[in-house]
Amino acid sequence: MKERSSRRRLLRLGAALGSGVLAAAGEETKRPGASLGPYTDRSPFEKSARWTRESKTPEAGSSFTPLQDSTGIMTPSALHYERHHAGIPPIDPAKHRLVIHGMVERPLVLTMADLKRLPSVSRILVLECGGNSGSEWGMKTAPDVQRSYGMASCSEWTGVPLSLVLAEAGVRPEASWVIAEGADACRMQRSIPMAKALDNVLLAYGQNGEALRPAQGYPLRLLIPGWEGNTNVKWLQELKVTHQPHMTRDETSKYTDLMPDGKARMFTYQMEAKSVVTFPSGGQSLAGQGMYELTGLAWSGRGRIERVEITFDGGKSWVDAQLQEPRLPIAFTRFRLPWKWDGREAMICSRATDESGYVQPSREALIDVRGRNSGFHFNGTKMWRVFADGRVTNAEA
Amino acid sequence: MKERSSRRRLLRLGAALGSGVLAAAGEETKRPGASLGPYTDRSPFEKSARWTRESKTPEAGSSFTPLQDSTGIMTPSALHYERHHAGIPPIDPAKHRLVIHGMVERPLVLTMADLKRLPSVSRILVLECGGNSGSEWGMKTAPDVQRSYGMASCSEWTGVPLSLVLAEAGVRPEASWVIAEGADACRMQRSIPMAKALDNVLLAYGQNGEALRPAQGYPLRLLIPGWEGNTNVKWLQELKVTHQPHMTRDETSKYTDLMPDGKARMFTYQMEAKSVVTFPSGGQSLAGQGMYELTGLAWSGRGRIERVEITFDGGKSWVDAQLQEPRLPIAFTRFRLPWKWDGREAMICSRATDESGYVQPSREALIDVRGRNSGFHFNGTKMWRVFADGRVTNAEA
Repeated sequence: MKERSSRRRLLRLGAALGSGVLAAAGEETKRPGASLGPYTDRSPFEKSARWTRESKTPEAGSSFTPLQDSTGIMTPSALHYERHHAGIPPIDPAKHRLVIHGMVERPLVLTMADLKRLPSVSRILVLECGGNSGSEWGMKTAPDVQRSYGMASCSEWTGVPLSLVLAEAGVRPEASWVIAEGADACRMQRSIPMAKALDNVLLAYGQNGEALRPAQGYPLRLLIPGWEGNTNVKWLQELKVTHQPHMTRDETSKYTDLMPDGKARMFTYQMEAKSVVTFPSGGQSLAGQGMYELTGLAWSGRGRIERVEITFDGGKSWVDAQLQEPRLPIAFTRFRLPWKWDGREAMICSRATDESGYVQPSREALIDVRGRNSGFHFNGTKMWRVFADGRVTNAEA
Repeated sequence: MKERSSRRRLLRLGAALGSGVLAAAGEETKRPGASLGPYTDRSPFEKSARWTRESKTPEAGSSFTPLQDSTGIMTPSALHYERHHAGIPPIDPAKHRLVIHGMVERPLVLTMADLKRLPSVSRILVLECGGNSGSEWGMKTAPDVQRSYGMASCSEWTGVPLSLVLAEAGVRPEASWVIAEGADACRMQRSIPMAKALDNVLLAYGQNGEALRPAQGYPLRLLIPGWEGNTNVKWLQELKVTHQPHMTRDETSKYTDLMPDGKARMFTYQMEAKSVVTFPSGGQSLAGQGMYELTGLAWSGRGRIERVEITFDGGKSWVDAQLQEPRLPIAFTRFRLPWKWDGREAMICSRATDESGYVQPSREALIDVRGRNSGFHFNGTKMWRVFADGRVTNAEA
C-alpha cells in the first residue's frame, strides 16, 4: 500500500483532465500519414547518438553507446559502440573469404555462402571494449554514463561455432593457439588460446536479426563470449593455428594492464562483473520531487548477474534492485528500482554480483590493488550525485 | 561420426587453399576505412527489405518482414512488419498525451515524461497481424515465406504495465472493457476486455533498446502479449474505460473470422501456435547436393514452443528440430536441423507444438474446420517443394 500511494503522487503530476484534452492529437494527425516503407529509420524527434572524441583520425578511435537513453537489454545495431584501429573496410561479402591454415591437417578457404550452410547458434551477448571506463582510472573521470561506461553494448549474435570449423580443418596435437586476423587496413590480429577457441567462440555473421553492421565486422567477425572486445576480431579473414601467441601490437603495446610494480599483465582477456546506473546519471536532471524509476545495466563476462544493490547515501546502506528476466549469461541485465526522491542531495551507485559470487569492487578498492595506470579492465562502481535542484553529476570528478 | 563426415563433404566445397589466397582481402581494404559514426546504417551490399503490395494508397496497407533473411529471433526495427489504416502520423513526443477516462475514479492525462517515471518492464515478444498468412486460406497461396508468413516480427518491448495505470485511475467495479484509440488519421480503435487489460498489457515506449519506430506507434503503443497485432493500438492517445465493447470498424467489418456456416466469430484475439521453414523456402535455390542447415521460426500466443518437427517427404515421416535457447514465451523460437540433401525432390514442412500441448494443424485440417473465408488467424503448416535442380517453390500453389 505504501508503494501504491507513492505512485499516486507521481501520477497526479499529470492528472489534470480538461474538456479540451481529448483532442490531444494535433492537426497534423488528421490527414493520412506516411506510407509503408522497405527499410525505415527512427523518428526525426529521436536524437540519441554515439559520442566520439574530436579527432583528426576518426578512422582509428572509439565511439560510445548512449546508455542513458537505452531501454531493456538490447542495443540497437546503429548505436553499438565502435573501436576501430584503421577504419571500417568496405567489404563485398561475395568476395570475402575466411582462410584457416597453419597447424591443421586440411587447410580451408570458406566463402560466406559456405559458412551459412553450416550449423549455427544464436546468443544474446554483451560486448565490452577492454578499454571501457578507462577514464575512471585517472583523476579526471568522465561526466556522464555514455562517456564513462558506453563502450559496452548487447546484441543477438548468430554464427557458426568455431570449434566445428577447427574440427573440420583438423587441428594438430601440438597446436595451442589460433591467430585471428581482420581485413581492415591494419590487419588487426589477436592470439586466442586453443582451449577458448574450442569452447564457445562463434564465427558471427548475424547481429540483431540481420547481417552484421559494417562497424561490427561485416560480413564476419569473431564473437568470444565474455572476453574483451578487441579479441572479437572484426572483418575476419584469416585464422592461423600455431603453437604460440604472435605477440601482436594489440596484445603487447596495447591491451595489457600496467600494475603498480611496473609489470604489465598480458592476455587478460576476461571481462569481470560490472554495473552502472543509467537513470539518474551524470548530465541528467530530475523534474522535482516524487516517484521515479531508477534503472541501469549490469553484466559479467563470467556468466549471469545474480544481484544488483543500490545505495542512495554514498554507500552507507544498500537495497536490492529488481532484475529483469530472463537473466542471460554474459548479457546485459536490466535492473530497476522505484525511488521516491525527497528533494535532498543523494549519492547513488549500483554494485553487481555475478553467479561466480564475484562482487563488483568500488573504484577506490580497485585502484588500491591495480594503481592508476592499468588503462584497461576498469570494472569499479560508479557514483552519481543528485543535487537539491535536481541536477545529476559525476560524483567522482 | 555420421554427422561429422557429412559436414566434411560440405566444407570441402570450399577447401582449395592456394598460395595466393592469403591475400584474400581486396585492394580496397589496404587504405584506412570509414570513420566512426553517430547512428549508422547497414552495409550497402545488404538489400533485404519489407515487401509491399502495389497500391495507390500505401498509407493504408501492409508490409511484410523478409523472414527468409532473418537470423536468430530478433527482428530489426527497420524490418518489422507494418499494418497501417491511415498512414504513420508525425507525432512530437513532447506534445503527445495519453488520456485515461470513462468509468474511472480519477481521470488521467499523462505525458511521455510522466510515463517514463513509472515502473517499467521489458519483454521479448512476437507480434503478428491477425491477417498474417491470409493468402493461405485461398486457392492461390503466396510464393515465398515473406509474402505468406511475413506479418510476424519479434522485438524487445519496454513499457509500463497498463494494470498499474488503471489501478491509479481507479477502475469502477461495473467497468469491463477498455477502448483504446490511436492518434492516426482514422483514430483506430479496439475494445480490450478488462481481464486482459489488467493481466500483462504494456504501454510500450521502447523497442529493441531505443524508442519505438514511427511505423510501430511512436511514441506510445499498446503491447498485448499473444493477441492479434491490430489490438496492439499504435500512437496510443486514449484509453476509455467502459462496460461494453465499442463494436468499432476494426472488430466488426474487419478482424472477424467468417465460418463455413455463415456466422462470423468476433473478438478472436488469441494467436495460436505457428511455425514456418525459412530456409529452404519458396524462391530460394540450393547450390547442389550436400549438407545444409534447415532453419525456421516458431511461435505461439499461448506461451513457449515445446517442439518443432520437420518432414522432408511431404508428411510421411517427421524428425525433431533443435530449438534455440532461451525459448521465451510468446516470442520467436529459432529452430534448426542439419540436413543432407541427396539431390532428389523433397517436400519440406515444419509443425510446432506449444506448452499448452496444442499442435499446429495442417492447412487441409484447418480449412476443413474453418472453410476458406476466415481471412484471419491462419496458422496452418506450410509446405515447400525442393526440385532436383535445387529450385524451391511453394508446394501449395
